[in-house]
Amino acid sequence: MAVYTDVAADELADFLKAYEIGDLLSYKGIAEGVENSNFLLHTTRGHFILTLYEKRVAADDLPYFLSLMAHLAARGVSCPQPATNRAGEVCGTLSGRPAVIINFLEGVWPRRPNLAHCAGVGEAMAKMHRAGLDYPSYRSNPLSVTGWRPLFNIAASRADEIQPGLRDFIAAELDYLEGNWPDQLPTGVIHADLFPDNVFFIGDKLSGLIDFPFSCNDILAYDVAICLNAWCFEPDLSFNVTKARALLNAYQRERALSEAEQAALPLLARGAAMRFLLTRLVDFLDVPAGALVRPKDPLEYVRKLRFQQNVAGIRDYGVEAAGAVA
Amino acid sequence: MAVYTDVAADELADFLKAYEIGDLLSYKGIAEGVENSNFLLHTTRGHFILTLYEKRVAADDLPYFLSLMAHLAARGVSCPQPATNRAGEVCGTLSGRPAVIINFLEGVWPRRPNLAHCAGVGEAMAKMHRAGLDYPSYRSNPLSVTGWRPLFNIAASRADEIQPGLRDFIAAELDYLEGNWPDQLPTGVIHADLFPDNVFFIGDKLSGLIDFPFSCNDILAYDVAICLNAWCFEPDLSFNVTKARALLNAYQRERALSEAEQAALPLLARGAAMRFLLTRLVDFLDVPAGALVRPKDPLEYVRKLRFQQNVAGIRDYGVEAAGAVA
Repeated sequence: MAVYTDVAADELADFLKAYEIGDLLSYKGIAEGVENSNFLLHTTRGHFILTLYEKRVAADDLPYFLSLMAHLAARGVSCPQPATNRAGEVCGTLSGRPAVIINFLEGVWPRRPNLAHCAGVGEAMAKMHRAGLDYPSYRSNPLSVTGWRPLFNIAASRADEIQPGLRDFIAAELDYLEGNWPDQLPTGVIHADLFPDNVFFIGDKLSGLIDFPFSCNDILAYDVAICLNAWCFEPDLSFNVTKARALLNAYQRERALSEAEQAALPLLARGAAMRFLLTRLVDFLDVPAGALVRPKDPLEYVRKLRFQQNVAGIRDYGVEAAGAVA
Repeated sequence: MAVYTDVAADELADFLKAYEIGDLLSYKGIAEGVENSNFLLHTTRGHFILTLYEKRVAADDLPYFLSLMAHLAARGVSCPQPATNRAGEVCGTLSGRPAVIINFLEGVWPRRPNLAHCAGVGEAMAKMHRAGLDYPSYRSNPLSVTGWRPLFNIAASRADEIQPGLRDFIAAELDYLEGNWPDQLPTGVIHADLFPDNVFFIGDKLSGLIDFPFSCNDILAYDVAICLNAWCFEPDLSFNVTKARALLNAYQRERALSEAEQAALPLLARGAAMRFLLTRLVDFLDVPAGALVRPKDPLEYVRKLRFQQNVAGIRDYGVEAAGAVA
C-alpha cells in the first residue's frame, strides 16, 4: 500500500495542461505499489496512472525503463506506455517529485494464481525477453549478486532477531552464490520484479505487464528464476511443480532455455530467493516498532531459499532437461 | 487512507455475477475513506465504487443511508446511487463484510477550497436538506449532543497528554453545550460529515456529494455548522469570513435560515467542533505508539472550538442577521 504524497486538484490540473491527455475528471490515490505514490486519473480522453517516485528509483533510472515500455509496446508486448508532454518529455515534476503518466491498463492481478496464470506469465516474459534483445540502453542490475552483500551488511547484526541462526545461514549461502554465480549465460532486458501483482489478467487471459522500475540488463534466466519463486509456491509455501511446469513450458514455447540455462536454473532460483530475502530483511528491520503497516515477511523467502537449495535439476520443476530422453 | 481488506479477483468476479453491472475489467483499492475499504471497479458497463464496511457503520444503518442516496438522487441531488443485485438487495456480503456497490461519480475534492467551492457546498447542502424533508426513514444522530459525554469519558483521563488543561476545557464546554443545546430548531436529514473530501467538483462546479454513512435526522442548521468549521478555516486555522459568507449566502438562496437558526448557529458550531474534537481525540489516543499512520489532529478542533466560543452572532460569519437593517 502506498500513496505517500497527496496532490492538490488545482496543482494536478495545472500539471496536466502540459500534456495532451484531456481535462481532469477525477483522480484517486490507489493502494498499489509499495515504492511510490500512484493515482488513477480519469480525464475527458481516457484513463491514466500518475506515479510520483518516492525513493529507490533514482531519477537517472527513469529514462531506461520509460523508454523500455515504449520499445516493448512497439514490439507487441502489452504494457503501459508513458505519455509525452508538449515539451517531448515523459518525466515531469509534481509535488517536488519525478512524475510520470502512463496509460491505464485494464486487468486484475491474480491473488491466487492458477495454471493458466502461470503459463501466461511464462509466455509473456519470454516474449518480453525476445522483444528486449534490440533495446539499445543498458542498466546494470543493482540487486544482482554483487548487490547482495551490501544489503547483508546492513542487516547482519540484527538478522537473528528474525530467526535464530539466520545470520550464519545467509552468510554461508552468500559465499556459495558469490563463488558460483554464472557469468556466461545469455543476458538481455529483464523485468526483475515480475510478481503476480505486476501481471494483469482479464479472466485467465493476460492483459499486460506493469511496473518496470526494476528492469535492467541481466541474465535472462534469472528473470525466470524470480518467477519460479513468485508464482509457483502455494500459500503454505509448498512448491507446486505443476505450476512450475506450466510456467516453464509456456516460456520455452517462445524462447527455449539452453542446456546451460536449464542447468543453472536452480542456482539462479537460490539467488533470486536471496535477493528478495535480503531486501525484505532490510525493510523489516527498518520499520519502527508498533507500526501499523507491516512489511513483507522475510522468512517466506528463507523457506523458498531452503527449497531451492534442495533442487537437483530442472526435472524438479516438472520439466525434462534439454537433450534428456523422455 | 484505508483498504483494510483485500479482495481476490475470482471472489470479486463471483460477487459481481449477482449484479447487472457488466464483467470485471479491473479494480483498485483506493486511498479514500478512513472507515472502510474502497475499490474503484471498471466493468464492461462503466465505473463503480465497491465499499466493504469495516467498523462504526453497523449493518443495521446501511439501509437508511443507501435508500437516502436513491431518494436524494430522484430529487435532483447529485450523489452516487447503490446498485441493486438480482435479488433486489443493495447490500451483499464479500470477504465476510457488508459490501455495497455504487456508481462512480466523476469529480475531485478540493484540497484548498476556494469561494466557489464554499458557495457550491452551501447550495448543495440546502438542496439536500429540502430534498430530504419527505424521506420516510428515521435515524437519530449517535454523534450529537447526547453522544459526546460517552466519548469524553473514554478519553478524559488521558486528554491532558495531548494538551495540558484539555480535560477541564472540554468538561466545561460539554456542561455548557448540554445545558444550552437547542431543541426547537427545524430538523430533517443531514449529511453530518460534509467535509471537503466528501464533495466533488469538476473545476469550480460541484459534481456531487458522497459518503453518507453518518447521515441521520438532526437539526438542519447543525449540518451548516459542521460545514462552517470544515470549509471556512484556512490551513493556519484563521477563519475566512468571506468563505463563510459565500457558504451561508448560497445556502440561504436555497433555504433561508430562520431567525432562531441564525441565532443558534454559533452555539451549533461550538457543538460541531466538540463532536469532531472528541472523535479525533478518541482515535488519537487509540493508536499504538510509533504507528506509521497518524490520525487526524484533535488540537485543530480545539482551536476551532475556541474561535466559535468567541463568535457573537451570525454577523461574525459575514452575514447580516435576519430582520437586521442593512
